[in-house]
Amino acid sequence: MTFAELWSALLPIGRHADTGGYRRFAWTREDHTLREWFAGECASRGLDLVEDRMGNQWAWWGDPDAQPGVAFGSHLDSVPDGGAFDGPLGVVSAFAALDALRAKGFTPARPIGVVNFGDEEGARFGVACAGSRLITGALSRERALGLADADGVTMAEALQRAGRDAAELGRDEDALRRVGAFVELHVEQGRGLIDLGRAVAVGAGIWPHGRWRIELPGRADHAGTTRLADRDDPMLALAAVIVQARQAAERHGAVATCGKVRVLPNGVNAIPSLVTAWLDARGGERDSVTQVVAEVRAVVDEHGGSLAEESWTDATHFDSSLTHRLAALLDDAPVLDTGAGHDAGILAAAGVPTAMLFVRNPTGVSHSPAESAEREDCLAGVAALTDVVAELAR
Amino acid sequence: MTFAELWSALLPIGRHADTGGYRRFAWTREDHTLREWFAGECASRGLDLVEDRMGNQWAWWGDPDAQPGVAFGSHLDSVPDGGAFDGPLGVVSAFAALDALRAKGFTPARPIGVVNFGDEEGARFGVACAGSRLITGALSRERALGLADADGVTMAEALQRAGRDAAELGRDEDALRRVGAFVELHVEQGRGLIDLGRAVAVGAGIWPHGRWRIELPGRADHAGTTRLADRDDPMLALAAVIVQARQAAERHGAVATCGKVRVLPNGVNAIPSLVTAWLDARGGERDSVTQVVAEVRAVVDEHGGSLAEESWTDATHFDSSLTHRLAALLDDAPVLDTGAGHDAGILAAAGVPTAMLFVRNPTGVSHSPAESAEREDCLAGVAALTDVVAELAR
Repeated sequence: MTFAELWSALLPIGRHADTGGYRRFAWTREDHTLREWFAGECASRGLDLVEDRMGNQWAWWGDPDAQPGVAFGSHLDSVPDGGAFDGPLGVVSAFAALDALRAKGFTPARPIGVVNFGDEEGARFGVACAGSRLITGALSRERALGLADADGVTMAEALQRAGRDAAELGRDEDALRRVGAFVELHVEQGRGLIDLGRAVAVGAGIWPHGRWRIELPGRADHAGTTRLADRDDPMLALAAVIVQARQAAERHGAVATCGKVRVLPNGVNAIPSLVTAWLDARGGERDSVTQVVAEVRAVVDEHGGSLAEESWTDATHFDSSLTHRLAALLDDAPVLDTGAGHDAGILAAAGVPTAMLFVRNPTGVSHSPAESAEREDCLAGVAALTDVVAELAR
Repeated sequence: MTFAELWSALLPIGRHADTGGYRRFAWTREDHTLREWFAGECASRGLDLVEDRMGNQWAWWGDPDAQPGVAFGSHLDSVPDGGAFDGPLGVVSAFAALDALRAKGFTPARPIGVVNFGDEEGARFGVACAGSRLITGALSRERALGLADADGVTMAEALQRAGRDAAELGRDEDALRRVGAFVELHVEQGRGLIDLGRAVAVGAGIWPHGRWRIELPGRADHAGTTRLADRDDPMLALAAVIVQARQAAERHGAVATCGKVRVLPNGVNAIPSLVTAWLDARGGERDSVTQVVAEVRAVVDEHGGSLAEESWTDATHFDSSLTHRLAALLDDAPVLDTGAGHDAGILAAAGVPTAMLFVRNPTGVSHSPAESAEREDCLAGVAALTDVVAELAR
């Protein structure tokens, strides 16, 4: 089966007719269809399908219980109205690379596995990389099961409805022991490869990143009758926070975003009583992110608000010797950091030798229907992944 | 029945246990309970209860079909988490004033009526003063019936569930003909009376006011991987709009508020694709409001957005000879404009001789649980209303 055939089969699943974006959320019907697709691809190749304690799908060629194997893959879920490439490109490329190895008559010295990690985006329950975090123990069963989606459905209930046993969740030693190395191919989510004029890069690591919750209290009042001087309007504080986040990020060479806001009571003629905003900040250096957050906090304090850390992930460095070996193998491919979290980062933090490959995205845009990759670059990605896995499974 | 007894009966209805605010929305169970309370007060006084085509409740002492009467009252519904006084103070004061007139043995030369206008706040269906607008024809039946609440329930469905006939809606000549004059007593929603050291004021008119919808498009993108220079982040445009609205209002002696915002997709790690904000602007002069809106529009244009008028109400001037007669009657009470819309404004615009009385609010705050009025000031309001109605129905 060609890359094009694999790719086409996925395109209609979970695509929203109005926006053209994807809505593939964990443990929904769309997710089920994607998992069935994965199982079908696995069966048609005679691979052994194993699900770990979280239900992440592993398709093995060879017995990873006899000796640890080389796994490659990514995820199939999406953010709300996300693009077609973020995740699926890595899974489709893994199947295509495995087909290429077999077509060449390659005989692996170690098992080779294709993986589909569940719930990578955290779009439904709010915790990104939930599938990999659960099997490494970075996310506890208790915390995971209590997470709820926007309709108040807990992960425990969602798992039960999907026919799964919630009691199974937890660190999965067997699944981790089987992975001698992990390589995740992913569409690039920025413009690094555009600027370099290259199709494929090797990942160096993941920037330190975190999210913070900002509460900006005000005094509810009537929009028509309250003099400006008498107002305590938290929307003005929000404006100051948005501007400061951007300017502080510019000052410190980091990125910072206010992408989510909640306003109470959110009435046209009501001065709000409370505005809650979330700050996402990331950067190449831990200190730059810390500085940005400190400067945003100063503005929040000025306005009588509060800022609390919701999550923090320190810098992740992929296996350095592996990274350089792969870059050399791929005609001196560029080595790039990324600001995005990935299952590869979770596995690396858990001690699995891990690498990433990035494929050029001509729009530079991600988490959007505008996310893209040229077919030629996708095939270059498959070729690179084929070489990398052949090298690692020699 | 004393003012205190009347007031106490209303206090528990629709009060939210957590916020202490009121949630009394049109055609809900809470609204039904409030209407039943009104009908009970009417029955216990031997008044004739008439509902007009929109279901506004009129309790008449005397026959307004024989000759037009003097009506006084207000509304019983609330904004989300509103205060106890906005609306109910006017209805309770009307019953208390009627009781006072009867206790004095007053014999009216014209009918006297207490009114409860429905759906004044527009909290459920988005159009303020829907009850008075429908009977004057300022809001058409077709437009009203198609309005929907946040759950997608149309006003047509809500009326049907409440046991009403939606086909009845429309301009009600009979109801209007019965009203020779209308006086609405209302808690003040600002600090005018605090500054003047007075308990009661007479209303002069309602400021010109309107609301505008602002669309700020951006480009959805990944918060972690998109360089600042590559972003088209509509939250920055929102910040500029919030700041400009405030500063333009300061420059032109008006008030302007961004109290409602909708962000898409509203994800912590997603640069938004679209921010929608609403502008509420009002002022003593039409030109000052026009200037504020023009200056906000300039910022919206700069950011590639669009601004559209959703509603506009020109200045309302209450009957000038009536206003001055009442001010003189009430020991030279101050005469104040207000920035808030009221059913009194709708009736005045429809040609009904109309006046308003305001009662001091020691917090100056409205549309909030902090809204307040001292008992002594409430009784001063009842006394003023009693004198005014006696004067008009002599």
